[in-house]
Amino acid sequence: MDTTKRVEKLREIMADKGIDLSVITNFENQFYFSGLKAITYSRPIVLAVNDNSLSLIVPSLEETHAKTVTKADKLYVYHETFMEDGNGGSHIEYLKSLISSYPQGTKVGVEFSSLPLQLGNIMRDAGLELVNLDAEIAKMRYIKDQDEIDLITESGRLVSLALKTSLENARAGITEIELDQFGNHALFTEVAQQHPDSTLDFFVMSPSGLKRSILPHVFSNTRKLEQNDIVIHSRQVGLNGYRAECERTFFVGEPTEKQKDYFKIASEAQLAALDVIKAGVTAKEVNEVARQIFKKADVEQYSIHRTGHGIGIGLHEEPSLRYDNDLILQEGMVYCVEPGLYVPGIGGFRHSDTVVLTKKGSQLITHHPKELEALTL
Amino acid sequence: MDTTKRVEKLREIMADKGIDLSVITNFENQFYFSGLKAITYSRPIVLAVNDNSLSLIVPSLEETHAKTVTKADKLYVYHETFMEDGNGGSHIEYLKSLISSYPQGTKVGVEFSSLPLQLGNIMRDAGLELVNLDAEIAKMRYIKDQDEIDLITESGRLVSLALKTSLENARAGITEIELDQFGNHALFTEVAQQHPDSTLDFFVMSPSGLKRSILPHVFSNTRKLEQNDIVIHSRQVGLNGYRAECERTFFVGEPTEKQKDYFKIASEAQLAALDVIKAGVTAKEVNEVARQIFKKADVEQYSIHRTGHGIGIGLHEEPSLRYDNDLILQEGMVYCVEPGLYVPGIGGFRHSDTVVLTKKGSQLITHHPKELEALTL
Repeated sequence: MDTTKRVEKLREIMADKGIDLSVITNFENQFYFSGLKAITYSRPIVLAVNDNSLSLIVPSLEETHAKTVTKADKLYVYHETFMEDGNGGSHIEYLKSLISSYPQGTKVGVEFSSLPLQLGNIMRDAGLELVNLDAEIAKMRYIKDQDEIDLITESGRLVSLALKTSLENARAGITEIELDQFGNHALFTEVAQQHPDSTLDFFVMSPSGLKRSILPHVFSNTRKLEQNDIVIHSRQVGLNGYRAECERTFFVGEPTEKQKDYFKIASEAQLAALDVIKAGVTAKEVNEVARQIFKKADVEQYSIHRTGHGIGIGLHEEPSLRYDNDLILQEGMVYCVEPGLYVPGIGGFRHSDTVVLTKKGSQLITHHPKELEALTL
Repeated sequence: MDTTKRVEKLREIMADKGIDLSVITNFENQFYFSGLKAITYSRPIVLAVNDNSLSLIVPSLEETHAKTVTKADKLYVYHETFMEDGNGGSHIEYLKSLISSYPQGTKVGVEFSSLPLQLGNIMRDAGLELVNLDAEIAKMRYIKDQDEIDLITESGRLVSLALKTSLENARAGITEIELDQFGNHALFTEVAQQHPDSTLDFFVMSPSGLKRSILPHVFSNTRKLEQNDIVIHSRQVGLNGYRAECERTFFVGEPTEKQKDYFKIASEAQLAALDVIKAGVTAKEVNEVARQIFKKADVEQYSIHRTGHGIGIGLHEEPSLRYDNDLILQEGMVYCVEPGLYVPGIGGFRHSDTVVLTKKGSQLITHHPKELEALTL
């Protein structure tokens, strides 16, 4: 990834807004600007950009890692050992020292949505003026370059493979986490063979049965699939940090007539939204196409979330495919399209696919049959 | 889990400090106080506690989930659909309305370490005085009750099983993520059989070879294990939200003489720290025991992190086993003990085990042989 270009772009934004320093704490944004994808746990990392350098404040555990994968001009390493006592004990200490050269009133770019109050207070107490860069950074991230699209596209292939494998092995008697496991195994094997020296993130959940499938977001648990269950199998895969999503609703045995009806309506809504999504239309137009299908079928009350979301480094990224989002979609955006219905006593219904918006329309990068026959096991 | 008791304790702390309202945004703390373990993604959740009610601000996707698993007195549900337009569109809106009944100068308890500046600003602009509860909440969480200890102990058994299975299947030619996968599969199967309707979190990484094993925290990748590799296999398992950790350094084939030396020193340091840790000693005393062994062997410079950390809902919790932590350890604390050495060109060396501090000393809850012979494959 060309992080240099991204930092240059950030500097342009900073110059426009009279910002002398940016202090980035969101780990996705840190990865975006520096290439450092750290396991942070209890040890914070701070990225700082001014007009001539990119600095990273990292715990000693990440020193070698940061040196290996980033082009940081300056590395401030904080320690937790006796031997290094007095030689930088926390990220706070380095942040204070880093901002100390900026006079009162200096504008500092930060992320209001994620900057911890503690760090905000330190900068404010030093007389610095904090400026919110949330929207600008989200905007940078939501247009993907070709390298990013290539990774996401491959993640699309991988997530489809994992989903296919889990569904092929689904049957009454196995638990949700076992169901997940079949696809995970196929995923790991494929990535190991095809992508030496890559990192792999993945997320999977399979809420099953009438009570759990109507919860759009719950961790898989050890409930066993039963005959005639409805299941939403939901997956994301991130190859070297870039994600794609694929989800299918399926049945273990024959669905009821009512389930067939809702399944059909949710599928139609997804197909219609996928059909209309492309550069040039607004986010809300895509949402509206799906909503109209729900409205016509008189099931709108069961549609409790937006039609979709951007994806990339983040599991969910801006911009949202929401009823109130006027944004015009652009080439280079990547979307998960997933209108859903959650009907108490009948089940949850949602397919999700990922599309890349290109000059020539939208390109589907996840693939799995979505017809009832193919999804009735 | 008895969340009611926890909320009562929080209210006592609030009363002591003259705090009328607490606004909790850290998701681990939200789980601790409410029982809601949500997949949050792009939709924030806010928990608010005053002297007579516990409120949750949740996205519509979590409404049913929150009703099912929490005893929240009030649920504020925000929406993202046309149908609910005007009926609460964001957590921000509800937070503003929730604080509007409190007069200027009201003390509000928040987490300075994680409260996003955006929410902090809203409360400050409303004239509220923010008081940091980080330390108090950490203190509550670091003493575990019997229910918590029971779950952590079972997680200790599960993580040991997963580690054992991965190590039994380790061999040259498989990748780090495939190595992880063997243990994952055993873990999932066991949890499915023994713990119906439970949630399972897990973390695993296996940095291998000279270059990667010296990085204490990196995601497993697709590097293939080679003959004579050194590997640190590191795992956490969390059953119903409560975690334990087990890690072993192992060799694929015969280690070099130097590797044997460092392995021995790191193992000794861990055994010594495990031997000394118990209620009544200070955190720094435990750290010092390990450090003295490193110092005596003249390898202290390769020990770049603390001797250990607390564990529970969080992957790493306070208090730290650090050289500068005077805290006296108490019954009910749970620790991962893991002094490590990271020697460029030779490898990384770290075992980790989890212990529960009880009346009768410390109880080891993770089990796997740690001698060189058992860990040379």
